[in-house]
Amino acid sequence: MLQEPLLLDLRNNVYLEGDALVVLDRRRLPAEQVPVVCRNYEEVARAIEDMVVQGAGDIAITAGYGLYLAARDLEKQGIEPEWHRLEPVIERMKSTRPTGFHLRALLDRMKKDLSAKHPEKPLASRILGYLEKILDKQKRRSQDTGKVAETLLEPGETILTHCFAGAGLLYMLMYAQEHGKNIKVYCTETRPYLQGARLTAWSVSQLGIDTTLITDNMAAYFMAQGVINRVFVAADRVALDGVVANKVGTLQLAIVANYYNVPFHVLGYGGPDRRTPSGREIPIEYRDPSEVLEFRGVRITGTEVKAVYPAFDLTPPELITSIVTDKGIFLPEKISDYWKV
Amino acid sequence: MLQEPLLLDLRNNVYLEGDALVVLDRRRLPAEQVPVVCRNYEEVARAIEDMVVQGAGDIAITAGYGLYLAARDLEKQGIEPEWHRLEPVIERMKSTRPTGFHLRALLDRMKKDLSAKHPEKPLASRILGYLEKILDKQKRRSQDTGKVAETLLEPGETILTHCFAGAGLLYMLMYAQEHGKNIKVYCTETRPYLQGARLTAWSVSQLGIDTTLITDNMAAYFMAQGVINRVFVAADRVALDGVVANKVGTLQLAIVANYYNVPFHVLGYGGPDRRTPSGREIPIEYRDPSEVLEFRGVRITGTEVKAVYPAFDLTPPELITSIVTDKGIFLPEKISDYWKV
Repeated sequence: MLQEPLLLDLRNNVYLEGDALVVLDRRRLPAEQVPVVCRNYEEVARAIEDMVVQGAGDIAITAGYGLYLAARDLEKQGIEPEWHRLEPVIERMKSTRPTGFHLRALLDRMKKDLSAKHPEKPLASRILGYLEKILDKQKRRSQDTGKVAETLLEPGETILTHCFAGAGLLYMLMYAQEHGKNIKVYCTETRPYLQGARLTAWSVSQLGIDTTLITDNMAAYFMAQGVINRVFVAADRVALDGVVANKVGTLQLAIVANYYNVPFHVLGYGGPDRRTPSGREIPIEYRDPSEVLEFRGVRITGTEVKAVYPAFDLTPPELITSIVTDKGIFLPEKISDYWKV
Repeated sequence: MLQEPLLLDLRNNVYLEGDALVVLDRRRLPAEQVPVVCRNYEEVARAIEDMVVQGAGDIAITAGYGLYLAARDLEKQGIEPEWHRLEPVIERMKSTRPTGFHLRALLDRMKKDLSAKHPEKPLASRILGYLEKILDKQKRRSQDTGKVAETLLEPGETILTHCFAGAGLLYMLMYAQEHGKNIKVYCTETRPYLQGARLTAWSVSQLGIDTTLITDNMAAYFMAQGVINRVFVAADRVALDGVVANKVGTLQLAIVANYYNVPFHVLGYGGPDRRTPSGREIPIEYRDPSEVLEFRGVRITGTEVKAVYPAFDLTPPELITSIVTDKGIFLPEKISDYWKV
């Protein structure tokens, strides 16, 4: 490893500083490390909506910090931060990004877990303690997922990845390095937000790994050449029927990988969402078309052209080789077994 | 039509002005119309290499103008512009872009045709006359190809296109408009050069057609939704075995269209290259990786990341529904019949 990647641990880029939550602006990485200072829950909600932070798990914890800021603000005003007073905050946080399930799941579970116990300490500090535990759990989960995924890699293989598949991908590569497997990585740039170029390729190269950036339309070319041995992507939500919602472009990659018989793996971390029986129930977030019509504020097409920006797509289980979780590797059709082991 | 698209006719954007060839810089369209003034053949060669002009047919004619400038320069110096003196110019022009075949074919044919006749007029003016005829022929070919392609369209269909498929696509849409077919068009932006966004979407919208821009990774999403009825792309070269070389990303689109049973059509204009028996013989141009690592001069990834930029890919005939030419529609496996009708 040349350098611990900034994105290996959420604590490096989302943290409390005095009275505010600091979120390093992922849209500006890697060129600049620009802190976005959120002084209240509404500013946290906007940072999530505007993709200052991204990734389903990271968004969830960031939203948890929004709840913390709201509880602490009430306490400062001498108001008891009871759950019914925080309900609008929870709803606001849930409204930010619809496709990932971690955000809703975390807020609901936190409310349930913290309501159950009698409060010895003020709610704000209990929320903080809870988030610390979740951060530890998420890190372990990424390490465990990475460890399992690493067993799939043969020495000398070249993998392709899309968007930013999270710390689990980085751990997988670090464990492979420890085992001397000499893995190479191709990253799609992942338009329009370029997470693949800005976050993944940068982070992987920080590990000292041979990292090649390609545009999203080149994947088939390199698979046809036999350059790619496997594909790894993450999931913003896995339904119990094995349908995977992930960054738009994932479906296309899965179809192409299938055509060339290249194994297509999904890093499923903590498993499928128990509340989503089938992919049909996953709402696809449509984002502002100007994100497609413009690049860094410069319009790239004629004024009469419109655009459409589905941020995610749904990949059916028949195109997925396996879903890799912290508990092991599952066939997509069997992913609901995650909750039985 | 709201406005005749600038790119409908090459004469609008590549033309002589005094002693120079003016090429409107396609990399700056549609935001700006910036003329690049080429005062000699070397400047024309560089304009082709740097993609100031693009599209296999348009490149060929532009290279022809380069030859004209070289012949005229010799005449001005009082030197007889014999073909052996122009040989280095022809080689320089041929070296600019390897994948398309029109450039080589045009220069070789021009030399053969103009050498055969006894020169009554100076060579430079004969080259100019020849190019005028080619321009007329190319325009007719685009119109004829568009006319044939239009017969494939059912009223109300939505088509998807990649990169800039040339004037034939625009004529197809104009004829469909005349027939009241109400066609909608989705354009992939076509990274890294964004020809789909900058050239195609802009030109199609100038016709008053409902035009939607998407990123290259969204095609499968919209096909899965049933939004796309057919795909049209062009070809930089069609081999006699039906393999199509076109802008990178074409292969990926063909695989995805095939998966969803969406007809995939190639605008083949003047047919396959008689000198290319099979796709294996088509050289793929690799361009400067910085074109992937940067966007408008801004680096989009870490400094240790490398990139690779194959500008074209090869689509096998089994993924192509039909190749549409000025002489009619061919199955890709039968495209060599083009030279028999």
